[in-house]
Amino acid sequence: MAEPLGELAVVLVSGGMDSCVAAALAARSHRLAFLHLDYGQRTEARERKAFHDLADHFGAEARMVADTDHLRRIGGSSLTDPGIPVPEADLASTAIPSSYVPFRNANILSMAVSWAEALGARPVFIGAVEEDSSGYPDCRAAFFNAFGEVIRLGTRPGSGIRIETPLIRMRKSEIIRTGIELGAPLHLTWSCYQAEDVACGRCDSCALRLRGFREAGVVDPLPYAGGPAA
Amino acid sequence: MAEPLGELAVVLVSGGMDSCVAAALAARSHRLAFLHLDYGQRTEARERKAFHDLADHFGAEARMVADTDHLRRIGGSSLTDPGIPVPEADLASTAIPSSYVPFRNANILSMAVSWAEALGARPVFIGAVEEDSSGYPDCRAAFFNAFGEVIRLGTRPGSGIRIETPLIRMRKSEIIRTGIELGAPLHLTWSCYQAEDVACGRCDSCALRLRGFREAGVVDPLPYAGGPAA
Repeated sequence: MAEPLGELAVVLVSGGMDSCVAAALAARSHRLAFLHLDYGQRTEARERKAFHDLADHFGAEARMVADTDHLRRIGGSSLTDPGIPVPEADLASTAIPSSYVPFRNANILSMAVSWAEALGARPVFIGAVEEDSSGYPDCRAAFFNAFGEVIRLGTRPGSGIRIETPLIRMRKSEIIRTGIELGAPLHLTWSCYQAEDVACGRCDSCALRLRGFREAGVVDPLPYAGGPAA
Repeated sequence: MAEPLGELAVVLVSGGMDSCVAAALAARSHRLAFLHLDYGQRTEARERKAFHDLADHFGAEARMVADTDHLRRIGGSSLTDPGIPVPEADLASTAIPSSYVPFRNANILSMAVSWAEALGARPVFIGAVEEDSSGYPDCRAAFFNAFGEVIRLGTRPGSGIRIETPLIRMRKSEIIRTGIELGAPLHLTWSCYQAEDVACGRCDSCALRLRGFREAGVVDPLPYAGGPAA
């Protein structure tokens, strides 16, 4: 790894593959502050372990887990409401799925920007990807651009805080290849929305991940229910 | 009070005077859902009491107190950090005061918009005022306008969610007169940043409130340390 430069970056790290690769990209030229949001997702315990494993791996100099219980209580999503079953994947559908947490990324970015301003960090890295946004309106480049204007107007003059979405136009397979080129620890990540020990292989998030590994021609290092994922 | 119309409004209610008047304005033509944020402010217990008193008064059909502990932990503010003294007022200063919580209003609005989308509410009322923003960059009309664009791009198509800032251009004295005209229960509100039983009369928030009552030619119904506030 190259000698990190002086500028501090906040990196949003869910514990999934995209945030791992975003962290690897940030680490090339920044010191790192890792932020994880617990909004009551079913698999939070496993995601939090992945977050800490990644923070250790990358040598993050600051880390914070923010408990955003209000997002769970606002509900309306199968990610947080045990009463709503996690649907099996339908990657051809363009409807907004029930795993949608309304306006989630605005909440996440607002927290990250508050922390960045308090720390004196400038870039805020988020591993958002339009391709796998599954119709979430707050995963699109236009949303992040508009949020940049809110940051410019809503933080101290000269804060210089900006959103970096290095994966926004990538396909999952490109993200995987980028991660492998950078030596990103994909084996430490977790993606499944359903299970915490062995990935289910059937939820949206598993389906996107597995399709990405297939397209990249690489075997996913994680265990899956029903055997190897190749 | 006129018969409320069908549209549901989320109202951000800190428990202070401005949010009380914003609620009174919303109540003229909306059903009400009241949202209060606990971000670890020193006087939260008193503000929360004011919130519930106001929700009872206005007959809010939904209420939520969101614990946003991450804003306390992000720190950097005398509002939340007991190690930083609350400064005495200097209303002539244009510097950003130490009571600043970085990017606070973006966090608050994001939560309110998530809740609005889950409830099917459309307007989100916030009693922000440019005059008493004390240099907070996220209290200005331009900030709220930019946030409106983020909402348009980041919520479900057709959500129709919008920010309403009916007090943004008002002076404190106008807010007080408006509240009195509408029969708003100003005696149930709390503004002091410092104390929870008898208002200190010396912090920024007390100073702005007292100046407003003086300019409006009305006596503040709250008790103040050192005697009547007239």
